[in-house]
Amino acid sequence: MDTYVYKKRDELFERAAAVIPSGIYGHLGPAEGCFIPTSAFPFFAERAEGAYLYDVDGNRFIDYMCAYGPNVLGYNHEEVGEAARRQWEKGDCMTLPAESMVELAELLVDTVDSADWAYFAKNGGDVTNLAMLTARAKTGRDLIVKFVGGYHGVAPWMQAYGSPGILKSDVSNIITLPWNRLDLFRDLLRKNPGRIAGLISTPYSHPAMYDSELPAEGFWSEVRSLCTEHGVVLIVDDVRAGFRLDLRGSDYYYGFKADLICFSKAIANGYPVAALCGQQAFRNAVGAVFNTGSFWLSAVPFAAAIKTIEVLKKIDGPALMHRLGEKLTNGLSDIAQTHGFTLLVSGEPALWNMRLTDDESGVLHQAWVAECVRRGAFFTNHHNLFINCAMTDADIEKTWEIADDAFRAVRKNHAMKAR
Amino acid sequence: MDTYVYKKRDELFERAAAVIPSGIYGHLGPAEGCFIPTSAFPFFAERAEGAYLYDVDGNRFIDYMCAYGPNVLGYNHEEVGEAARRQWEKGDCMTLPAESMVELAELLVDTVDSADWAYFAKNGGDVTNLAMLTARAKTGRDLIVKFVGGYHGVAPWMQAYGSPGILKSDVSNIITLPWNRLDLFRDLLRKNPGRIAGLISTPYSHPAMYDSELPAEGFWSEVRSLCTEHGVVLIVDDVRAGFRLDLRGSDYYYGFKADLICFSKAIANGYPVAALCGQQAFRNAVGAVFNTGSFWLSAVPFAAAIKTIEVLKKIDGPALMHRLGEKLTNGLSDIAQTHGFTLLVSGEPALWNMRLTDDESGVLHQAWVAECVRRGAFFTNHHNLFINCAMTDADIEKTWEIADDAFRAVRKNHAMKAR
Repeated sequence: MDTYVYKKRDELFERAAAVIPSGIYGHLGPAEGCFIPTSAFPFFAERAEGAYLYDVDGNRFIDYMCAYGPNVLGYNHEEVGEAARRQWEKGDCMTLPAESMVELAELLVDTVDSADWAYFAKNGGDVTNLAMLTARAKTGRDLIVKFVGGYHGVAPWMQAYGSPGILKSDVSNIITLPWNRLDLFRDLLRKNPGRIAGLISTPYSHPAMYDSELPAEGFWSEVRSLCTEHGVVLIVDDVRAGFRLDLRGSDYYYGFKADLICFSKAIANGYPVAALCGQQAFRNAVGAVFNTGSFWLSAVPFAAAIKTIEVLKKIDGPALMHRLGEKLTNGLSDIAQTHGFTLLVSGEPALWNMRLTDDESGVLHQAWVAECVRRGAFFTNHHNLFINCAMTDADIEKTWEIADDAFRAVRKNHAMKAR
Repeated sequence: MDTYVYKKRDELFERAAAVIPSGIYGHLGPAEGCFIPTSAFPFFAERAEGAYLYDVDGNRFIDYMCAYGPNVLGYNHEEVGEAARRQWEKGDCMTLPAESMVELAELLVDTVDSADWAYFAKNGGDVTNLAMLTARAKTGRDLIVKFVGGYHGVAPWMQAYGSPGILKSDVSNIITLPWNRLDLFRDLLRKNPGRIAGLISTPYSHPAMYDSELPAEGFWSEVRSLCTEHGVVLIVDDVRAGFRLDLRGSDYYYGFKADLICFSKAIANGYPVAALCGQQAFRNAVGAVFNTGSFWLSAVPFAAAIKTIEVLKKIDGPALMHRLGEKLTNGLSDIAQTHGFTLLVSGEPALWNMRLTDDESGVLHQAWVAECVRRGAFFTNHHNLFINCAMTDADIEKTWEIADDAFRAVRKNHAMKAR
């Protein structure tokens, strides 16, 4: 199998590095985290369609990053694009909201189990921040509990003390507990009566750099009970998993009901919008928090979100992505085995994590992912991956071929061998 | 002159109030702040074009709110729309950035006086927050200075202690000084050697609820000197004024050079994007801060921003808006006088503030604004107003007519009389 060549990539990155700190900012670029070894990865997109991303060198990738989540129906989805265009012709960012804002709120209230209302913003982090403030405003308490590795945006209070620019006072009211440890949560509540405002958590544990972990049997129902008993606001951060597991919310998927639930990423198939939804009891508190943004009334993303949710309902997107994800990851595990490797798949099939366990350093896994990328399957290391509804069985099978050839290359070229 | 009737507005607001806290969130809606008396204002837009907003009842407004700033070239601007469409056909929110991101950074570095680099996000508040963290990361210091009434986004550290959800610890490192008081800033620096990380300020004082205030003679040059002398990072929040005063930055307009400068709102004529630009010395610090967002690589807003800035350059947008704003506000002041009222105009002509000083309570001003709105000039109370490049001399003259008739109605209908 031929491997990809990058040339315009490097020319463009040189231009980028001259005018943008790190060339491409944050973990979205090659300077950090997910793109290791960077030489294997494309850096710039020329265009995208359906399941595919085309880089500036004309290479085609089956894109399992899905723009880090937003691409849920396929890039440049025709129906979503048409709905966006129709709204765009009337107006997008205006002094007043359009009817599409109200329609989207109505649709979310109809669709999402824990939603009696919806409130919109732009970033996922805008609504996790609003949820945190709402929990404090509602309870008059200070402390927020999160789980180890839980990523809820880049606001100072959600970063780690010691990260550049972050002070101890930024995180002085945040308590971090290990995932799935009911005993520790119970203990904390007992020792801090009337002090915990809220618990914020993703529906399952999907931190970067670690295997994903599903909720243990009974975990969420007990957390729900404890929160109710102690007056703690239960906030589900469904920014990454939302609209991939269950359109009614990932809390519903796991059999419980959040007080507040945060959506973004996949909600409008890539159009920028975030939503905080919640139960009736929190309506006044969220309305009292001071919160606003320049483009929060923009009508096009609302129209796109309405169509995205309608299409996901019509085709039962979550079921489709579950099936495709299971097929893909089962196949990848089998292929790994035929080459003498062990691929650990964790999380949910529609947004899974994977890791070759034959080498604890991660270098073997990075090498295999790199060989996959060079052959047209866009995975990254150490971050969960995403299925979208435009992927076909043929794409899955093509990915298997790529993975197979990539394992062969790893066996041949890399010092790390299977057991 | 006929006054507008609202009917569909109230039906739609009833639907909104059922599913959205406050119906329309924050100060963007009738529940708070700017829309007093609410009965006079439209709440929902049907469409917008050029200088005009059309509400759901079919009323047309000359829109001096300009979407709170983003509308700088006119709604649904043809060239900007065409640039956005071209990029949209290739791809918008993708796993990787498109070339348009690099091109926009290059254009900003070429255009903005204090920009050696650019870093993009979605909300103005994303980049004021990033600037604050960069100042701390660069200096290793904790304290941030701002000016009274300075609005820099809704992050907890920028809100007021006592506002719902905000704790004392959120604002414990923020020091607030009165505007234009060099003596107090000097004093603060002397008393806190090596403790001030940054000063964040709009280029002139334009708080909601108060008259705007321009920088006093020599203010900025002395602030610049003091910041340099004491190693304080000088952050200009140009989110509201940017691209209306001078395309090279509002710091350039006032004759000084910021270390970091924040843009959003007008940068892409309504497409959602924000930019932090800065001098070389801060490149590594900003790159080290952890900062990311779901839609920050989206290519369409970059393409729209490029075209917006190109068109603003071509037509000299700032000069045009200055002229139109001066003509409008001079005329409004004269018309007020002919009715025996005094209209105080403050700030810059392209984004001015105004207030009838004949009544300190603000009720007379609200009544006059309400009469203007009911006749098709969309002003709000207690917030600065915006000119855009699609406005014509005919629009200004039409606004004078409206204002004239509105003064007549105020004289006739309201208890508050002129002196």
